[in-house]
Amino acid sequence: MEKVKIIEVGPRDGLQNLPAFVPTDRKIALIKKLAATGVREIQIGSFVSPQAIAQFRDIEEVARSVRRLRSVALSALVPNERGAEKALACGISRLIFFFSVSSKHNYANVKQSPRASLKELKNICRTYPDLASTSLRVDLATAFGCPFAGKVTTTAVLRMVEKVAAMGVREITLCDTVGFGHPKDVEEKFLECNRLFPEIRFGAHFHNTRGLAQANALRAYDVGVRSFDSAAGGLGGCPFAPGSSGNVATEDLAYLFESMGIKTGTDLKKLLTVSKWLQQILPQAKLSGALFQAGLPSKRKLFC
Amino acid sequence: MEKVKIIEVGPRDGLQNLPAFVPTDRKIALIKKLAATGVREIQIGSFVSPQAIAQFRDIEEVARSVRRLRSVALSALVPNERGAEKALACGISRLIFFFSVSSKHNYANVKQSPRASLKELKNICRTYPDLASTSLRVDLATAFGCPFAGKVTTTAVLRMVEKVAAMGVREITLCDTVGFGHPKDVEEKFLECNRLFPEIRFGAHFHNTRGLAQANALRAYDVGVRSFDSAAGGLGGCPFAPGSSGNVATEDLAYLFESMGIKTGTDLKKLLTVSKWLQQILPQAKLSGALFQAGLPSKRKLFC
Repeated sequence: MEKVKIIEVGPRDGLQNLPAFVPTDRKIALIKKLAATGVREIQIGSFVSPQAIAQFRDIEEVARSVRRLRSVALSALVPNERGAEKALACGISRLIFFFSVSSKHNYANVKQSPRASLKELKNICRTYPDLASTSLRVDLATAFGCPFAGKVTTTAVLRMVEKVAAMGVREITLCDTVGFGHPKDVEEKFLECNRLFPEIRFGAHFHNTRGLAQANALRAYDVGVRSFDSAAGGLGGCPFAPGSSGNVATEDLAYLFESMGIKTGTDLKKLLTVSKWLQQILPQAKLSGALFQAGLPSKRKLFC
Repeated sequence: MEKVKIIEVGPRDGLQNLPAFVPTDRKIALIKKLAATGVREIQIGSFVSPQAIAQFRDIEEVARSVRRLRSVALSALVPNERGAEKALACGISRLIFFFSVSSKHNYANVKQSPRASLKELKNICRTYPDLASTSLRVDLATAFGCPFAGKVTTTAVLRMVEKVAAMGVREITLCDTVGFGHPKDVEEKFLECNRLFPEIRFGAHFHNTRGLAQANALRAYDVGVRSFDSAAGGLGGCPFAPGSSGNVATEDLAYLFESMGIKTGTDLKKLLTVSKWLQQILPQAKLSGALFQAGLPSKRKLFC
């Protein structure tokens, strides 16, 4: 069976909403521990202005401390050319540009229209002409719904994909930023994306806010998606919705695939250890993962 | 699209593992509130000996208090002919007989072999000859794995199904008693069951112990299952594994289907109200449902 690529987003999407600053050495320790679990890529943070997200005010120090890690690709989010420049200068060569399909959400998030974000992306692609086809991924936020605008249509997503693809980008991730996606929508959007843009590798980024992340991941796999974001322990979620879950937990997602005999390259026991450690060092963060709380089935022969 | 039947098992599977006795009036209130949510059936408890499960020592009083509820079918678990007799005498005419596919688990649970349990089932069918084909469902516990024996094969499940079907029973539910099931196993087992026993209506009973209940439910639906057990708020789970989830939450399961445009007949808002009430009256029970904590998406037009 085909392998699935799991991209750990805990140090980025997991930490960015925490009200308290996580000390730099803890961030570095988290990334190093994650690098030993077998995940294929780790998003180490965002090269954004500290005014925008104070949690990442130490991103350069974190980047310089982990840049030499082997066995795992390191990536970071960049909202603009300046962020890209900084990331590259710190030795992070895999970049993720992001904007929202929903105009309202993009204004709320990065204070500009999707059109302005696309212009920013164009600037990055012009300044770094080799980047687009090799080491640049674009995240389409709110691809499955927006807290302000509601439904986000497949047509709206395809329109953005077309514009991004035209710039030579070859990796696009559809993000269920607020946990609105459901399997039927997931199926329709990825099927259409793959049909119309066969040259693009599409990835999926699901939150478990309303309990559907694993069902969505299963359906995305059914229709050909092989690249999935997740955060150790299910870190993340919105601090303004105290009970809500965050990103789908890395160990839960890996377990979904591994239990079905689909290799992820991860070591589930090591992933559980990281989540338990996270729970200890970040008691204020509600970790929503199921597997690290329940433990692996006692009999491993249960697996395929 | 075809409708899905949701069977609320909170008053039975949800309460049975709670260490503290839930007062009778609260049980009755729970069942009455659930009856108003649109679920098609409610398992009100088990007609077992109080020595086996003290939580159900008031089952006869509960049954007599709710037997006249309209708009919902009421059912109860019975481990033997005596239990069946009591349930029927209390006005509960829909019975669920249960035993484990795994011999070790059946001994641990009901102190006898699956063969002895099958004999008990035969006694019930003989004493109540019309029951089997009309109002008797059989639950096969540990159909997706056993905490003692590990893997439970499709062959083992089919062998039990064959024996139960031979007694004239027309409804069988495959239960993932301890949360070991995964979508590939779910697919294989239900496909084979439906292929070999087209005269039987197969139902699914999933626990979210390891985060796979919704993915399993989706896959079961994919292969034709239309009857699903769940518990309000995700009540249930094992008191000896404090962090582990219980039954898949009714509102999460209903949301999975409703979001895809598959009608369940339930009112999601009413289901959320019941779960929030449950959290208040049973603070000692860790409710694992996602939706009642996050809330419905603010824009209902997200739905199909």
